[in-house]
Amino acid sequence: MTERNLTLLTDFYEITMMQGYYKENRNDIVVFDAFYRRNPSDGGYAVCAGLAQVIDYIKNLHFEKGDIDFLRNTGMFEEEFLSYLATFRFTGSIYAIPEGSVVFPMEPLVKVIAPIMEAQFVETAILTLVNHQSLIATKAARVCHASKGGGVMEFGLRRAQGPDAGIYGARAAMIGGCIGTSNVLAAQEFSVPALGTHAHSWIMSFPDELTAFRTYASLYPQNATLLVDTYDTLRSGVPNAIKVFTELQDAGKMPTRYGIRLDSGDLSYLSKMARKMLDDAGFTDALICASSDLDEYIIESLNLQGAKIDTWGVGTNLITSKDCPAFGGVYKLAAIEEGGEFVPKIKLSENPAKITNPGNKTVFRIYDKETGKIKADLIAFADETINEAEPLLLFDPVSTWKKTILEPGTYTVRELLVPVFIDGTCVYESPSVMDIRAYCQKEKDTLWEETKRFSNPQEVYIDLSERLYRTKQDLLDRIHSENKRHV
Amino acid sequence: MTERNLTLLTDFYEITMMQGYYKENRNDIVVFDAFYRRNPSDGGYAVCAGLAQVIDYIKNLHFEKGDIDFLRNTGMFEEEFLSYLATFRFTGSIYAIPEGSVVFPMEPLVKVIAPIMEAQFVETAILTLVNHQSLIATKAARVCHASKGGGVMEFGLRRAQGPDAGIYGARAAMIGGCIGTSNVLAAQEFSVPALGTHAHSWIMSFPDELTAFRTYASLYPQNATLLVDTYDTLRSGVPNAIKVFTELQDAGKMPTRYGIRLDSGDLSYLSKMARKMLDDAGFTDALICASSDLDEYIIESLNLQGAKIDTWGVGTNLITSKDCPAFGGVYKLAAIEEGGEFVPKIKLSENPAKITNPGNKTVFRIYDKETGKIKADLIAFADETINEAEPLLLFDPVSTWKKTILEPGTYTVRELLVPVFIDGTCVYESPSVMDIRAYCQKEKDTLWEETKRFSNPQEVYIDLSERLYRTKQDLLDRIHSENKRHV
Repeated sequence: MTERNLTLLTDFYEITMMQGYYKENRNDIVVFDAFYRRNPSDGGYAVCAGLAQVIDYIKNLHFEKGDIDFLRNTGMFEEEFLSYLATFRFTGSIYAIPEGSVVFPMEPLVKVIAPIMEAQFVETAILTLVNHQSLIATKAARVCHASKGGGVMEFGLRRAQGPDAGIYGARAAMIGGCIGTSNVLAAQEFSVPALGTHAHSWIMSFPDELTAFRTYASLYPQNATLLVDTYDTLRSGVPNAIKVFTELQDAGKMPTRYGIRLDSGDLSYLSKMARKMLDDAGFTDALICASSDLDEYIIESLNLQGAKIDTWGVGTNLITSKDCPAFGGVYKLAAIEEGGEFVPKIKLSENPAKITNPGNKTVFRIYDKETGKIKADLIAFADETINEAEPLLLFDPVSTWKKTILEPGTYTVRELLVPVFIDGTCVYESPSVMDIRAYCQKEKDTLWEETKRFSNPQEVYIDLSERLYRTKQDLLDRIHSENKRHV
Repeated sequence: MTERNLTLLTDFYEITMMQGYYKENRNDIVVFDAFYRRNPSDGGYAVCAGLAQVIDYIKNLHFEKGDIDFLRNTGMFEEEFLSYLATFRFTGSIYAIPEGSVVFPMEPLVKVIAPIMEAQFVETAILTLVNHQSLIATKAARVCHASKGGGVMEFGLRRAQGPDAGIYGARAAMIGGCIGTSNVLAAQEFSVPALGTHAHSWIMSFPDELTAFRTYASLYPQNATLLVDTYDTLRSGVPNAIKVFTELQDAGKMPTRYGIRLDSGDLSYLSKMARKMLDDAGFTDALICASSDLDEYIIESLNLQGAKIDTWGVGTNLITSKDCPAFGGVYKLAAIEEGGEFVPKIKLSENPAKITNPGNKTVFRIYDKETGKIKADLIAFADETINEAEPLLLFDPVSTWKKTILEPGTYTVRELLVPVFIDGTCVYESPSVMDIRAYCQKEKDTLWEETKRFSNPQEVYIDLSERLYRTKQDLLDRIHSENKRHV
């Protein structure tokens, strides 16, 4: 794919605000956090993704002449500001949680420290990229959790919300755990397996199903998976498939990988019947693939029903995250530098869940030393450290009486945010998608089973450091009393 | 934006099937229909969109060396076929319903007539492009219906499923009736209005709200819309906005367009209180804009509650079509040419709603002559004609006893499908997005109010011509008896 100039992929208000800061001579260094407030699909976690595309976007950020001309024609911008835009580059620093990590609400997934004009401008694109891929990576992780080891194939391109949703959706689905995608462009772009065999139209274009099967299986001995539901699954499709497999066996040309795909009807019943028919014919290693409006709930249910399905093709519900098609990530001002110090800022809301965490922050993940599972995450100021040789106090930031002290030797700590850009220079190299996928598999293993279940998952504790907690309370008290004064 | 090569934006099976046809020397001319089965959000209609991007895709279709190399490396393709791909172009014909049209289930939105390898190959991309934009155009039409003339602004980029979902989603939202978009790249690309003012971070970056408002309003006298909910809407935001408007008025510098934006809280209550405060201060022409997780249902409800809201900023729920994030369009083989004739093909399914309409078809729209409203759509063979001077028989294709005869002079007819490509050459010029939007406004006026409502809308009759109905029944009977024979 040709690299696109996505500089104008932004909300108009980012540029009107930018001009405002420009005209006010505002060069303050600020801290913005990209974070989310609720796990998708009421789950217990999310998988973050999209950082590689954020890096490409930031590296490539520049206004071309046509962009400037377009802005000029809106009549909203002055020449001096437009000249500034012509030389605009991102000169700030970005810290992020690596792609494929399991993450939780309120944690900064991406932190931008930059002059206010730059930090403000990159808001929209960062959110678009991280929101979308984190959404699909999370959904894929859920679907793969339901399949309990059965390979999940991403088949959703035709229902994706545009080409990028298909391409980056496939990327995110791989990160979340899929074994391959039907999307050829994504497979090319990200070096991941392209999968698929044939459609109903293949079958219908031949005089009969048997000829269609026979032709396909002889052409593709690498993967003779035959779609058996065009006319009648159990009375026509499976018997014809068995006939073709028998012919190939008799001719000593058994395919390396072969089986059937069920794409409609009662997948539980049909898979059990088809399994029996295949086994009775001696084809015990024939694989049964199912597709047809699948999602994590249906796959979990089919597995509970004892369906005999080996691999799963998941389309619409994965590529759109149908039950929850938006990640809801936001980007909020957290601090402004004054005299070399970051002064914490907070956004109030009548909804307490929408009150932000102020300050230049980081996230520490606390693991149970014995099991390697996550005990809690701790949001703290970036200059705080945790000494594993000392007891660690954790307390709930809402119900503060809920406290626990971790004794040294029972826990380990890892800081999640890593430097990605320092003063405008990229210092981070994105791993390959398959490597991110492997990392994500390990990340998912750090979750307790109770956190991965779909109904009422156990929430992971996201605590604040004592210092951050106190700073936040002070800010809330101060604004509250100021508002009173104003009335 | 740079033009991208989207040739590999396809499902892998399209290419494996294509090689199959190639090796079988299959050059049959076939007919494929892209259509959908259920209106999004259980509505009474859809608005089709995406054709301009389909045209770009088809025109630009070619395999580059890197694409061929990638396919070679999968190990699935033979050199002879790869050489064929290197010269591959689309040589067929495409007919489509123009963008912005109101459409209904089972109608071919796009019809492809081409050699089977070409017609098969373009399936996935056509579906991706048409599914996505039709989904968002439909959603926008619904949201605009709820706003009853109050301008709807597309604000969803940050929650879009990737850059294209934002860009083409904004395009589709404009077609469906929005008055502008926050998405600058979309505004540039499609010559539509870019809208927006400032965010909470603008307010928070100043020492106090009043200074932030004052600065913004003096910078942008074209559109001084002030965001009033950062600290406290009625106790701080609205009084500060009024103070700034008063200052500007006193200085003889009243903005051309001005007002407030409410972005949280009870929009019904807050808008009524804010309206009263603004009116009492003499600012009766100040506009109140609302945003905050809006959709057609909430807007309809707020209007019913008498909320004083002039314009609506709609984000996540519009750009993702949140309650129904996939359009569900499919692409099915309808006919194969044999000896110069199109032989109708049908796809069976245990679910009767999934049985396709066979043959090379077109769609006639029947209008009530007096009101100009749609009476019914009639799917017919492409070579059928309707003579408005004769009575027209309409009957329900499921409950065939439901019949009606339209007398001459009471109805008019329009064929919906227009030629887009003929023998590989594009013969259709896409109108500008603003022109498509204007056409869509007229199209929406041809719907009865009962069809536009959100709950249990009246379904528009989608009938089959007598000849098409009989051909379909014959095919069903024949396949049914053949299946019996096979068992």
